[in-house]
Amino acid sequence: MPVGTQGTVKAVPQDTLEALGAQIILGNTYHLYLRPGHEAIRRMGGLHKFISWPHALLTDSGGFQVFSLNELRKVSDDGVRFRSHLDGSSHSFTPEHSVEVQIALGADISMAFDECTEYPADRPRAEESLRLTMAWARRSLDYFRAHRHLVPWSDPKGCCMQCFGIVQGGMYTDLRRQCAERLVEMDFDGYAIGGLSVGEPRELTLDMIAETLPLLPKDKPRYVMGVGYPDEIEQYARMGVDMMDCVLPTRAARHGLLFTSEGRLNIKNKQYAEDQGPPDPLCDCPVCRRYSRAYLRHLMQAGEALSGTLNSIHNLAFYLGIMKRVRASLHETSHSATGN
Amino acid sequence: MPVGTQGTVKAVPQDTLEALGAQIILGNTYHLYLRPGHEAIRRMGGLHKFISWPHALLTDSGGFQVFSLNELRKVSDDGVRFRSHLDGSSHSFTPEHSVEVQIALGADISMAFDECTEYPADRPRAEESLRLTMAWARRSLDYFRAHRHLVPWSDPKGCCMQCFGIVQGGMYTDLRRQCAERLVEMDFDGYAIGGLSVGEPRELTLDMIAETLPLLPKDKPRYVMGVGYPDEIEQYARMGVDMMDCVLPTRAARHGLLFTSEGRLNIKNKQYAEDQGPPDPLCDCPVCRRYSRAYLRHLMQAGEALSGTLNSIHNLAFYLGIMKRVRASLHETSHSATGN
Repeated sequence: MPVGTQGTVKAVPQDTLEALGAQIILGNTYHLYLRPGHEAIRRMGGLHKFISWPHALLTDSGGFQVFSLNELRKVSDDGVRFRSHLDGSSHSFTPEHSVEVQIALGADISMAFDECTEYPADRPRAEESLRLTMAWARRSLDYFRAHRHLVPWSDPKGCCMQCFGIVQGGMYTDLRRQCAERLVEMDFDGYAIGGLSVGEPRELTLDMIAETLPLLPKDKPRYVMGVGYPDEIEQYARMGVDMMDCVLPTRAARHGLLFTSEGRLNIKNKQYAEDQGPPDPLCDCPVCRRYSRAYLRHLMQAGEALSGTLNSIHNLAFYLGIMKRVRASLHETSHSATGN
Repeated sequence: MPVGTQGTVKAVPQDTLEALGAQIILGNTYHLYLRPGHEAIRRMGGLHKFISWPHALLTDSGGFQVFSLNELRKVSDDGVRFRSHLDGSSHSFTPEHSVEVQIALGADISMAFDECTEYPADRPRAEESLRLTMAWARRSLDYFRAHRHLVPWSDPKGCCMQCFGIVQGGMYTDLRRQCAERLVEMDFDGYAIGGLSVGEPRELTLDMIAETLPLLPKDKPRYVMGVGYPDEIEQYARMGVDMMDCVLPTRAARHGLLFTSEGRLNIKNKQYAEDQGPPDPLCDCPVCRRYSRAYLRHLMQAGEALSGTLNSIHNLAFYLGIMKRVRASLHETSHSATGN
């Protein structure tokens, strides 16, 4: 899922995302709550309409962003008080309020309000954090079920907004297990594994996913939050992960880092100054079909806005291409299995 | 002509320009000479290929930019010494060198090296400036004719690069006349009226165009440089001007100023915060078809890159739409005239 923090996948127009085959994008509740405000978005018919994205949307709970505001936040059992990074104004998110904001935004998928446990966290800290996440999951889901009908749209096909729970537990597999079991009992519409890609070594990320994934129902979406590099997302998808989101393809693009079939390419490097080849010779995206490495390097050197746009389009095409190939190969495997 | 200073019409991808019906864009010789360098562009087959724009291209002579570097330049009969705004390095443009650089860039249309007379300029100053411009026009054209075969492309249709002369003369109609007559004798491929839109009142701009235009051959392109607002370009086109360029539609767009059938609209204004109408209700551009004023305002407020892109697309569509309507109405008039 490309990340559209403020209601836009940075530097990429919506029709381009459609042409790339993006099926779902993510919006950040914290950012949209502060600007333009969830009530304004509700009045305008919800986020789909506001940003003109008539496809699937997911909003996070705001928790991750709020917890990133290290010095501006205060956590209690009730929720989190924090100051806006925009103007220092004081706000609070409780599980109920986070879900209320998400219902106003009206994405297709909302996330339970959780505490993203930092890394490293010792056992008592991870246990305490998990206690909050589980209590907040219950409160999020109760509020969601009582208020989901207030979503600012109605789907002619009768679909309605969903709510996913988030498994935390730091890097302790028994805490992860305990959390997964409790959330599954609550019967969410889907399950996410959160608190990963927060600075831990990659083997640990993999361990946590491998331990947690089998505890989550296969017939509901299983979502690993905030990952990852191209090889990681392929690996996790093959393990059974259905959804992932990451700012990496677009953020790296804006810094000139392109992901290609030949590995990572820093387009700023002087070696590309007169390289007339496409960014990725095996890529069929609109950028690789039309522009050279030399031109992309020039745009970057010249500080041109088109640089971020073209680099992002390529990286998103590369990421979406990986998922497309994985889906095709899983489909094939499942057909072969049926054939046996 | 949308302006693509550094080999890109800021924030707008080439395929979007094509979809908008842009037939020709402008590149700035000064900027491209400094970065990535005209020799690099020549080695890569010229500007069309480098920026992937297989349509018409025009390069200015670099004169206007160099003369804008007030404190960094020194003018002599031979040419101009200047310091790069990028790194302070020392360079010089003579008429021959400007044309040499333009031939290396290989646009379809190059411009003679001229001195853009500042406003206000008293008569002695305007005369002296004009003396330079006319001497440089001769030298530009001689160098161009002797070296045009070095352009880094060949057109299967046998077209070759053209060179336009630039009429200067400050705000003195007799000087304008004198310059126009001399340039026409030299037999350029087309003629520009320069040194306008440099701070003078609009009536003066109009006077200079009205006085100069009849002196330039109707069967060659007549180009007014650096104009203007939507009503100006329509007015000048109806007077017989064939070509105009201006950064206004794209620069204004990046600052949130949209040109619409209802007048100018500052998309940053609070009144648009929840305005779900299109930027321009009478516009059929991809931005007006898909996005609301509220969304464009949000992108601007949030400092999102997509803001510059979408605003620029609309403003370019608006400008190109004016020219399209003027062309259609002139076509009709000329058909009626034939009918009489």
